[in-house]
This record gives sequence, C-alpha cells and structure tokens, in this order.
Amino acid sequence: MSKPYKDFRPQWMEEAAPDDSYRSIFRWGNPNFTKYPNEHLYKAIKKVFHMSDDDFKQYDGNIGLDKVSFDVPKKVVTSEDIEFFKSLVGADFVRDDDYARLSVAYGKTMYDLLRLRKKIIENIPDVVIYPDNSTQIEKIVEYVNEHKIPLYVYGGGSSVTRGVECIKGGVSLDMRLRFNKVIEFNEVDQTITVEAGMSGPKLEELLNNAQKYFGAKRAYTCGHFPQSFEYSSVGGWVVTRGAGQNSTYYGKIEDIVMGQKYATPIGIIITSHYPREATGPSLNQIMMGSEGAFGVLTEVTLRVFRYMPKNRRRFSYMFKNWEVAMVAAREMMQKECGVASVFRLSDAEETEEMMMLYGVDHGPVNAALSKLGYLPNKKCLFLGFTDGELGYSKNVAKNIRRIARKYHAFNMTGVVTKAWEKGRFNDPYLRDTMQDFGIMTDTLECSVNWSNMAKVHDEVRAYCHSRKDTIVLTHMSHVYPQGANLYFIFIAKMNEIDDFKQYHSGILDAIQKSGAAISHHHGVGKMFGPWLEGYLGKLEYGTFKVLKHYFDPNNVMNPGGTLGLDLEEKDKRFLKEENH
Amino acid sequence: MSKPYKDFRPQWMEEAAPDDSYRSIFRWGNPNFTKYPNEHLYKAIKKVFHMSDDDFKQYDGNIGLDKVSFDVPKKVVTSEDIEFFKSLVGADFVRDDDYARLSVAYGKTMYDLLRLRKKIIENIPDVVIYPDNSTQIEKIVEYVNEHKIPLYVYGGGSSVTRGVECIKGGVSLDMRLRFNKVIEFNEVDQTITVEAGMSGPKLEELLNNAQKYFGAKRAYTCGHFPQSFEYSSVGGWVVTRGAGQNSTYYGKIEDIVMGQKYATPIGIIITSHYPREATGPSLNQIMMGSEGAFGVLTEVTLRVFRYMPKNRRRFSYMFKNWEVAMVAAREMMQKECGVASVFRLSDAEETEEMMMLYGVDHGPVNAALSKLGYLPNKKCLFLGFTDGELGYSKNVAKNIRRIARKYHAFNMTGVVTKAWEKGRFNDPYLRDTMQDFGIMTDTLECSVNWSNMAKVHDEVRAYCHSRKDTIVLTHMSHVYPQGANLYFIFIAKMNEIDDFKQYHSGILDAIQKSGAAISHHHGVGKMFGPWLEGYLGKLEYGTFKVLKHYFDPNNVMNPGGTLGLDLEEKDKRFLKEENH
Repeated sequence: MSKPYKDFRPQWMEEAAPDDSYRSIFRWGNPNFTKYPNEHLYKAIKKVFHMSDDDFKQYDGNIGLDKVSFDVPKKVVTSEDIEFFKSLVGADFVRDDDYARLSVAYGKTMYDLLRLRKKIIENIPDVVIYPDNSTQIEKIVEYVNEHKIPLYVYGGGSSVTRGVECIKGGVSLDMRLRFNKVIEFNEVDQTITVEAGMSGPKLEELLNNAQKYFGAKRAYTCGHFPQSFEYSSVGGWVVTRGAGQNSTYYGKIEDIVMGQKYATPIGIIITSHYPREATGPSLNQIMMGSEGAFGVLTEVTLRVFRYMPKNRRRFSYMFKNWEVAMVAAREMMQKECGVASVFRLSDAEETEEMMMLYGVDHGPVNAALSKLGYLPNKKCLFLGFTDGELGYSKNVAKNIRRIARKYHAFNMTGVVTKAWEKGRFNDPYLRDTMQDFGIMTDTLECSVNWSNMAKVHDEVRAYCHSRKDTIVLTHMSHVYPQGANLYFIFIAKMNEIDDFKQYHSGILDAIQKSGAAISHHHGVGKMFGPWLEGYLGKLEYGTFKVLKHYFDPNNVMNPGGTLGLDLEEKDKRFLKEENH
Repeated sequence: MSKPYKDFRPQWMEEAAPDDSYRSIFRWGNPNFTKYPNEHLYKAIKKVFHMSDDDFKQYDGNIGLDKVSFDVPKKVVTSEDIEFFKSLVGADFVRDDDYARLSVAYGKTMYDLLRLRKKIIENIPDVVIYPDNSTQIEKIVEYVNEHKIPLYVYGGGSSVTRGVECIKGGVSLDMRLRFNKVIEFNEVDQTITVEAGMSGPKLEELLNNAQKYFGAKRAYTCGHFPQSFEYSSVGGWVVTRGAGQNSTYYGKIEDIVMGQKYATPIGIIITSHYPREATGPSLNQIMMGSEGAFGVLTEVTLRVFRYMPKNRRRFSYMFKNWEVAMVAAREMMQKECGVASVFRLSDAEETEEMMMLYGVDHGPVNAALSKLGYLPNKKCLFLGFTDGELGYSKNVAKNIRRIARKYHAFNMTGVVTKAWEKGRFNDPYLRDTMQDFGIMTDTLECSVNWSNMAKVHDEVRAYCHSRKDTIVLTHMSHVYPQGANLYFIFIAKMNEIDDFKQYHSGILDAIQKSGAAISHHHGVGKMFGPWLEGYLGKLEYGTFKVLKHYFDPNNVMNPGGTLGLDLEEKDKRFLKEENH
C-alpha cells in the first residue's frame, strides 16, 4: 500500500473480490491486501501510455465482480466415475459446480487473466477432486488410466505457462485443501518429506519453528522463495523446475530435491534419495520437469537449511551502466568467495522504475547520483543479501563490496534492499490493479551464459520495444559462475487476447533466436510447448516422447500440449534448421 | 618409494614391465615408478596374512612378464569392415594385433587383474580403432549400427566395473591416442570444451597454464582429481558419473559438466549448455551415467575454476572414535560456512593403516596420542584442505578447527595431509606390488545419508570381516550436507577368480541391504549390472530400458550387460521385494 495521492486519486479497486466471483479466481494474492502505484509511478505510467486522469475514473472492461456461472457440459467424466471418486475420497471432496471447475482451470499468465475477465470459459475440468493422501491419488491415477479420463493437477495455481489448464476436460486434482501434510522431518539428514500440495508459507512456518513442531534442535528454512511464494506449492516447484529468489545461494529446486514419489499410469515411481549417485541416468532429473505429463507427483523429500537471519548482510550498489555491471556481477560469481543469496541486477530501464516504485526517483538521492555520474537511463541498481554462517556471509558481502568498488559502483547501503524485501512477494499485486485500466503486465525469462548476456539483453529488449509505448524492465537474477537468468517484465496498454498471444510468441522467438534457453524456471507447460522440440532438437526431444509413452501410454496425464508432447507437427514452432 | 628395509628385503618387482607384456597391461600407473610397503606396513601385512619372509622370496603365480600372445579368432568384424575403418581413420590407426586387442579389453578391478595374470583371454575386441575426431566417430557409429557390430570405448582404462570389456567382440575405440584435443576455451564463461579422450593430467596442465596456451588472464583448474587421475580421461569421468578427491568443494563430474555431444546409432545428440534450465527433464542428466550404452560421448564442455593453490589451507585432526568423528563431520557440512575441498575421514582400522603407511605409527606421535586418550583401533584420522578465495578458504578452515575442537579432536596440523597428498595418486601402485605375492586389494564404495551412516559402516564391514584374515579400510569422502560416500578397501590373501567374485558380490549385497546406493562414483558397468534393476526397482529401471531402445535399437553400444540392460532375468540379482 502506498501513500495517498496529492492531486487526483484513480479509481483503484481496493475491495476484496466478491465470493465466488471471476475476480476471486484471477486476482493474485491476499484478497484483503491491495497494492497500487505511488503517485510518481502513476504519473510515469500515464505519460508512457498517453493516458489521462480521465482514463482512471472508470475501469477498462470487465473487472470480474460477477458470480461465476456458465453452462459448459462435461466432456468425459460420467456420473459413475463421480460415484467412484466420492467413494474413494469422500463425497464432500468431489465437486462439479461451476466455481470449483473454473477455479482450477487457469494459471496466471495474462492469457489466463484476459480470458477470465472476458468470461471465456474453455478447457475446464469436468470435476475437481480434493485428495487427502498418496494412496487416494494412486487409485485415481489407476482409475483414470483404465477409463481413459484426462487428469490434471492444480497446486498453487501460479503457472504462467498454461501448465494446469484442462485442455481435454476430465479430472483436476486440487492439492491445496488436504494434500499438504508433513510425512517426515529428519534432522540428522536435514531433510523434510511432504505431500506435494504443501504450501510454501506453511512449509517455511513449520521449518522456522522446527523446535516447536518437530522437537528439533534449531530452526530451519526451505530456502525456496519464488515470487509466487505465498500461493505456491512444493509440487509445483518441483515438476516445473522452479527457482526461488534466493536461488543463487540455495540453488534451484532441482538442487534442493532429494527424492520424489509419483503415481503414474504404470504404477508408483520412487526415485532414490542420496546426495549423489553413479547408478546410470538420474531418475530424479528425469522426473523433475515432467510437469504432470508422466504422472502425479505425490511426495517430495527436500533438503532444508539452517535458519540464520541474523547473519544476513544486505547490500545495494549503483553501477554506471549495464556493461560494467555485467562484468562486476560475473566477477562476483567467479571469484569463489561464496555466493550471495539474493543477487539482483536491474538494467537501466528497470532501475528507473524501481527508483520510482520505492519512491526515491524524484528525491535528492537521484539528483545526487546524477551529479556523481550515475545518470538516468544509464545507471543500474544491484541489490541483494547474503545468507549462511556469519563468517561466510560476511566474507561474501566483503568481496561484493570490493568488486563493486573496483567497478566504481556507488554504495546505496541496505536500505534499498529492505524496500525490495518489503515488496518482494506483493509487488505483483500491482498487476491486477493496473489491468483494471487496460494495462497489461507479464513476464518471460531465460537462461543465459555470460558470453552471450549482452546479445540476449539487446535482442530480446529490441523485440519487446518494437511495440510502441511499452515498458520493458529487465533484471539478472539466479546467478551462476557460468551465467544467469535474464528476466523480462513487459507492461503495455493491451486488452485483446490475440494481441497478447502474438506479442508473447514474438518475445519467446526472440529469446530462442538470441541463443538463450527458453526457460530458466517458469517451465514449459502448454504455452511454450510448441517451441520445445525446435529448441532441444528432434532427436534430443525424442527422449521425452519415449519416456512419456512409457509412463503414460494412454496419454491421460496432463494431455493437450504439455511439453509439446501431444501436439501435431503443424502446431510446433521450429525456429532453427536442425544443425546436425 | 619408501625407505630401505633394515632386515629382510622382499623381492618387490621394481623393474618396468617389459614391452608388450601382460604386466604392461594390468600394472597400474607410471611404468617407471614403483611403490612398495614400508617396513612397518610389511610387518603388519605378514602378521595379518600369516606370512613369513620366505613367502616374499618368490612370486605367487605369474607376474605377467611374458609377451602377449594368443590365438583368439575375431567374433564379428570382417576384413571388409577393417578396410572401411582404415579408409576412414587411416591405416595406421586400425589395429588387430594381439597386444592392441588385449590392451583395451579390461579395466582395473581385481577380476580383470587376476584374469590377465592367469592369461585368461576373453571378451576382447576384434579390432581397435584410434579415432582422431568426432566426425570419424559419428561415421563409425553409423557403420557399426548398420552392420550390427558391437562397439566399445576405452578411455583411461581405470574402470573397476568391467565398463570397457568387449563382451561381444567387435570394435573398441581407444580414445587416448588422438582424440584428446581442446575444441574451445571460453574464459568469459569459464568453460572448456574438449574431446572425450582428453586425459586428466593434460587437461589440468593446459588449464594451470591457460595464460600460455589460451592467452587467458589467469590460471585455472579442472577441479576433478579421481585417484585414477594420472591415466583417466574426461569421457570416462562423465559417462560413469565419476568423482574427484576434491569433489566436496568442486562437485562430482555431473556438477561440473555444462554440455555433452554424443554419436548414437540414431544420430548426433547435443545437450544444452546452460547453468540451469526449466525445459523438461534434464538431457544432460539422462546422458551422464549412460556408460556407453546409449552412444559414444565425443565432446564435453566443462566448467573450470580459478587455480589458487596459495589459498589452500591444510588440516588434519585425530578424533577419539568413529561415532564422534561422524557427528563432527556432519556438523562441518551442515554449518553453511563453506566446504573443504578434500575432506577425508578414516575409520579406526584405516587410521592404523594410514599411520603405518605414513610411517608415524611406531613413532612418538602414536604413543603420545595414546596417552592423551586417542587409542589404537579407536582413533580416527580426519584430513583435508580447503580451496577457493582466501577469505572463503580461511573461513572454512577456521570453522573446521572450531568444530574439531568442540568434539575434542587432536590437531595433527597439515603435515599428515601433505603425506597423503604425496601418495594420493600413487598409493594404488602398492596394489600390483603386493599382488605379486598373492595379496589382493580391491575397493567398493557407496552413497549414504547421515542417518544411515553408522548402520552401513557396521554392516558392510561386518560382511567384509566375515572372511577371516582380511584387512578392511573404510573412509568417508565426497561429503554433503545430507550424507557422504563411504569407501571400503579390502585386502586379503586371495588368488582365485571365483573366490574374488563371490566375496565382491557379497560386499555389494551387503551395501544394498544396508540401505546405501550401490555406487557413488565408480559407476555400474557390467560388473554391478545384475544389481541395478533390483536396486532401482523394476518400473524405475524401465526408464533406462526405453531410453536404451530409443538410442540403440540394435544393441550395438557397449552390449553385454552394461547397466544390466541386456541381461536375462535369471542373471539379475534382486535383493528386496518390490515394495510398491
């Protein structure tokens, strides 16, 4: 929540969405918390999009206050099937009302939000089941396989790749309600085993209070904090190969997972749970990233870490430009001095936006920075914090300070970092508020090696900006000695679904053509599915097809284009000639 | 080389093996360097094995001085095939003489050595090809697939799993001679791309002198130093999922590999080369561990690290017993203070042997230790060193010191570590010297979680010691926050192949029954192949079978039991009931 406006106050929608409304489905975040741009940012938005205060007096299109109601027949599931499911999980935990069906059909890409605002009801499940334990899920998978009923899974619902969408109708498992229990906490090994529907905040709360809940000797942390943390689930983290904002230190989820259990059409799959092995291809790494197409993830064993927030050292620096900032960032990651936990480097455009978002752009700080040679639309903000044992944490911060100084960065202290921390999970709340006035926000991200970083940054941004009057914020995060994630946030006045699809596809094309991996942590889902075979190569992609056929011969697991697995050739997108 | 003996001097074989002899094939290491036990160790060996000086006056059996010569017809390859291979790689680089054929047939398990000493010639290739580049290998793979000729690969030859053995005859590619070049060094990304036959020492020499060879700004290291380093190859590291002695800091090879290229029967497979991705299952992790059964690894891109030996901090401590040492080791790895590079904890039996090997057991040090409560057959030696940037390295050493002190370990300083370093690659030379007198040495290792460490240590050692008069040395190395590798060296008076096979199988059974992973870094090969399906589970193992069938439908890639892939059911070993 920001300070009140001096002059005009836009008609920001601040009330919680009505029960059972469309808005209650598409709106992200805590229903009782609203976020809108501060006055500086509001003025900047008006300017970029050629809007006036008048445009903020009424909403642009439907803001979804109506009660969810539609008439869409079931595609596959019969009343006999429903009886079976009820007998298995309890009558209260099988629902086929409109609200239940729609609430698990879509994720959180703009494509989803636009459809919900426009009441376009497609690809919804016939029935939603709220399982309680792995055995129920195993029986459901066995049943749907036998009866050839498509099966989908809804975890936290933050997919931006149409990962949860029920293209072929059938059943969706909503994991949030009951399938969220701890199976085992092992303090000696520092691991926890949970059901896949376990939510991020609940997991972290349990671990932070491990003494109370598990009789542990100390407090722990899960180390995994995606921006969607508040409504994300462990299962979603794992099957999509997600990353948390602290991944530079804690690793991506594939670095944190120790073991997995899946219910697949051919039976239960249990991966092993050792730190490392030399027993053939890694089954853990085959199942992670399968995005529900091989089976339903039921249980996960995760590494846990010591919770030591007192050791945290915050830092932020202003670099003179992107080129020098990139060199410094690389040096920080290659110096072998330990690594920061959050490591976030904004490019010039994002830096200006962040300064506005945090209310410092028109203040004396910005003016002083300019005088010192840290110029508007040039300067780049770098922020983060360290974790780990105190000596380790301090050594990382010390080396970052040294390298920042070597590259003539201005020390902004930890204050900027604290502002970022305050908004790290709820900055995305701005998105719905602004979309009420026709302003679209979405993101794409990619994995890049250092030697190609400048090119990817240039080319992808050039494409994004080829659309007039578009804000494109780029930052580097999730950083490694060999490269980093580049993250693009694009904001535009846009209300039409086809416009969005075309623009989104164009950016994804630009990412692939520039030589980056098409996703570092969002996953592939059904939205990026058409690109995957062209990106990996036909023979390489063939491994996914044979694995899919092995686990799911009847194609009932998340069918309809997940990982591009059941797409027709004509629907796939090949951007490069096969080079071998 | 050790000090001369005071009394009797055994007939240690010190001369280099004659050219083209059996010994020149089976003897490990630099031909011009010999290692034999010092007098203390010699006396201890005599005692354990009830041997006298008389037993060391003549060799026990054949020591392999004869010239290699045998009459074994080709199994598959015709003269037309040979003509084709010669036209492809050059006439000088295709050999079918006895020596060439035998020299690539076996690895270095005792099973291999016993066969060579006994002149048991089986499972040799029909012809050996010395390829020069990836294109040649791609054409060879295409040809052998078309003509259904089995294809094997010989890298450094240090396999202890019968990984290279040419069960079905056919072709073996000897990668050492020519296929060992650098393809690209990328200092910005800190990566190097090499041909798979690149040797460990050559790679390290290039990287240590990167300024000279590549015009780099600084020196680098590969970070991967298996005990077999001197004669190991990059390709071998990768396809078996190997680990170096410094893996606690640098990671196992799967943590170091960025990208791979394979020649498979269905065509060329190129994995991607990003630090991390979210684009479905990991192809890199599917190919690593395929042990030649999916295709021939041709090129590898590895991460490289800064070479900073001046920052290294050596340490060694003596713990009072294994129980307390395990707790301390775990705390060191879970403290999040950074990690040591070499981290090696010997159990009580190994500690006694190491003290002898390094000549300190009968000295004042050992007596003083006893007085202080560090008792014989109880005390446990822990040693290692740190790597990385100076502040990081010092912080790790400081925390290790603190934790060692907390658990009442005695500081042995870095001297013991230096002695270990001196012998780290040539201690295995002792093996051949002792085998000349009928004393067998071999090793097995496994991956263990902390909570199961004591059990695995107890049970596996109990089995090993169930054989009378056997030395069993155990240490923990390659250590993680969640567990470690346990490494067993067993030494016995043993000369019969069947005795060895039975004992070796029994240990592997004990490892699996105790709840450890059957290999942390040696791999599976053909020797552990029978265990793999039972270890992983039938459905889980099924993924390997469908991948194998996809890449190699004619079963010409390392056929004959690699990863157990083409074994009959009756030849597989299932130790547990399927539990799901």
